[in-house]
Amino acid sequence: MSNSARHRLVVIGGDAAGMSAASQARRAKSPDDLEIVAFERGSFTSYSACGIPYWVGGDVTDRDDLIARTPEEHRARGIDLRLRTEVTEIDVPGRRVRARDAGSGVESWTGFDQLVVATGARPVRPDIPGIGARGVHGVQTLDDGQALIDTLARARGRRAVVVGAGYIGVEMAEALVHRGFEVTLVNRGGEPMSTLDPDMGRLVRRAMEGLGITMVNGAEVTALRTDADGHVRAVVAGGAEFPADVVVLGIGVRPETSLARAAGLPLGEHGGLLTDEHMRVRGHEGIWAGGDCVEVLDLVSGRARYVPLGTHANKHGQIIGTNATGGDAVFPGVVGTAVSKVCGLEIARTGLREKDAVRAGLAFESVTIESTSRAGYYPGAAPLTVKMLAERLSGRLLGVQIVGGEGAAKRVDIAAVALTAGMTVCRMTTLDLGYAPPFSPVWDPVLVAARKAAQKVAA
Amino acid sequence: MSNSARHRLVVIGGDAAGMSAASQARRAKSPDDLEIVAFERGSFTSYSACGIPYWVGGDVTDRDDLIARTPEEHRARGIDLRLRTEVTEIDVPGRRVRARDAGSGVESWTGFDQLVVATGARPVRPDIPGIGARGVHGVQTLDDGQALIDTLARARGRRAVVVGAGYIGVEMAEALVHRGFEVTLVNRGGEPMSTLDPDMGRLVRRAMEGLGITMVNGAEVTALRTDADGHVRAVVAGGAEFPADVVVLGIGVRPETSLARAAGLPLGEHGGLLTDEHMRVRGHEGIWAGGDCVEVLDLVSGRARYVPLGTHANKHGQIIGTNATGGDAVFPGVVGTAVSKVCGLEIARTGLREKDAVRAGLAFESVTIESTSRAGYYPGAAPLTVKMLAERLSGRLLGVQIVGGEGAAKRVDIAAVALTAGMTVCRMTTLDLGYAPPFSPVWDPVLVAARKAAQKVAA
Repeated sequence: MSNSARHRLVVIGGDAAGMSAASQARRAKSPDDLEIVAFERGSFTSYSACGIPYWVGGDVTDRDDLIARTPEEHRARGIDLRLRTEVTEIDVPGRRVRARDAGSGVESWTGFDQLVVATGARPVRPDIPGIGARGVHGVQTLDDGQALIDTLARARGRRAVVVGAGYIGVEMAEALVHRGFEVTLVNRGGEPMSTLDPDMGRLVRRAMEGLGITMVNGAEVTALRTDADGHVRAVVAGGAEFPADVVVLGIGVRPETSLARAAGLPLGEHGGLLTDEHMRVRGHEGIWAGGDCVEVLDLVSGRARYVPLGTHANKHGQIIGTNATGGDAVFPGVVGTAVSKVCGLEIARTGLREKDAVRAGLAFESVTIESTSRAGYYPGAAPLTVKMLAERLSGRLLGVQIVGGEGAAKRVDIAAVALTAGMTVCRMTTLDLGYAPPFSPVWDPVLVAARKAAQKVAA
Repeated sequence: MSNSARHRLVVIGGDAAGMSAASQARRAKSPDDLEIVAFERGSFTSYSACGIPYWVGGDVTDRDDLIARTPEEHRARGIDLRLRTEVTEIDVPGRRVRARDAGSGVESWTGFDQLVVATGARPVRPDIPGIGARGVHGVQTLDDGQALIDTLARARGRRAVVVGAGYIGVEMAEALVHRGFEVTLVNRGGEPMSTLDPDMGRLVRRAMEGLGITMVNGAEVTALRTDADGHVRAVVAGGAEFPADVVVLGIGVRPETSLARAAGLPLGEHGGLLTDEHMRVRGHEGIWAGGDCVEVLDLVSGRARYVPLGTHANKHGQIIGTNATGGDAVFPGVVGTAVSKVCGLEIARTGLREKDAVRAGLAFESVTIESTSRAGYYPGAAPLTVKMLAERLSGRLLGVQIVGGEGAAKRVDIAAVALTAGMTVCRMTTLDLGYAPPFSPVWDPVLVAARKAAQKVAA
């Protein structure tokens, strides 16, 4: 219980959402008015998980570069940060949390006036034989990244198998190539990057194969074979065996909401916490949630989605910190934007894929165009492909996917803003976008796609 | 007069707007249904004027790379293209134009059912002593560019003076540095790039000075001194004399509307033709105009503006070609987006500058933030500065200016779409923009600026 007149804000989880909330609350309220206690079960705070593949691949050499703010910096700003301390229970009616210090094993209760649940995500680990073998690594935390780098340094051979072909899997496959490994990527789906439609994913596969990565598509991993000493030696998938000195799991993540579930807080169909647009847990005054443990509204489909990305987590944290201290900020939802750079390709998506549009019951048209990132005559002009989906009668933009060379990916922001504004592809054809030869053909590729889509929806 | 059953479309001007209109009309109607006659007084068609500085600077080596479509290609598609043929009169009631063949000097009349006025722009040439000297060059046409390159190749010395510090002037100054010249840029204004606010223009000046360009600001050119042989030898500006072996004029352009004026077609306050949003000349059925000879609606201020850019000219042409053949397309207006790459800097702007907002009678707040183009820890992260203007009570976005390293400029498209949609800076703070370390810090610089602007308009 708070035993002083001061309000106490308790934060569970010391990464992007939690520490952004704590920092924003601290900016708004002095320590005299608000006590802030943050529990983190790991050893780090406020780091860029998205940067881990670049660290493993060697583009980023110093782990500390990935840390936006150290525990000491948080403490110096008046946040009572307790590392290696895991919250084991949320007592909602009692307005308190129980936490265990990993060092001493001691458990104790801490009361709160307001609570921020920012418990993040946990990586999916398939329940198969050998999953606990040595040499098998996830890459979600800095601790994971360090463990993998240590394994790579002393690996017995140079054969790596990556399981999963989403962003993390593909980024890790490339990072391992950079580390001098022979890489096989095992993928359940038909093409890598299932966040894209398969016709766009195919472009990614070709780039990966061009880098010497062996792609095994349509194969489910059923077991990991181990040596007598408990070290992984092969991955069994789709009936074949792939020798492996190291295995990286990049199968995706799920919301880490076991605490919330036990406390009776509301969860959605994807297992994430449900909040209102102020990031307040539905039906629970003074309890907030954000980051990889919540579901968000998809503004295009109108449905709840699970989109674990640092960019949303940071926004959630800032909004929670504002609202928990008397301000008023909202998170209206997402349109599903994601960008990545792998194997010399830039990859971007926003809005709905074909299968999302089908699932949402929308009649749509889809177009694909080829263009270049710069004026064709300007040095460094790279090919790029834009796919665009639009609703059939209204002409409303539904989604955009881009795969191409340098300068391709951030063009997706044009579509992200247009989706947010509910713009039609016809209106998009005359958007006043920046044009100069070093940046774009005179018709920006997004305009070319919009023009083709506008013709098709009108036909 | 048309002396057949076929309709005849006459186009005056064979560059972006005119030939886009002709090409689009040809796509829509076969030669059996529509005759298309295009008059061009010069020797080239459909070239990228924006690429000329890169050709002069050596980034683009072959002039023909700047030509999107040759006269032969147009003719092969059934367009009766008449080069070196200047239209000297438009007879509106008689539905005909008079044109003079530069070779033979013969003038003749050609009737039209529909007319496209795409007469472009003419460069401003100050009426000062010596302006006609040899060694003084504009850079508006391919002929201009070739003449300048020839002059540079045989120049008596290595001193160049550029007059005017807009996009073209600054780009040309850099191109001349690349050609091994000592460059002085003489500018009437206080800072280069008056399309930016002066505080942002200052960043450009520093980059130019870093490249060894001598900037002379606040100086009006009053005369050019010539040698006995009629070749320029110095520029007189602000009371001082600047030695020059070559002079490049980059003072800007005006609408080339003398024909239209003589024909009684309606012109606006900037001297450009006035059209409706179908690009039909106001009050004149069957007469269309587009490109650098028209004024356009500024969607942010609601006023007419003159924005001579190839990207608009291409859109105008396409819209005219559609509407002249029974289709229905509109050009709603511009928000004032422009991007450029000079002296290692990317420069972008959209919407209103401070002085535009004052002129429009808007109460506004302005914020400026510093960020980076990529995650700070990712290789190649470059600093960038974003300035954002928002209306005081409504919070509506009014304008954005960006100056920075690689990856800075095209971010302006985010603001261009937001301006088009009439978005508030508050709504912009939660835009779902692409984030990954190679492309952006976790808070995109545009979001950081929006957040600061949102705080300020709410205060």
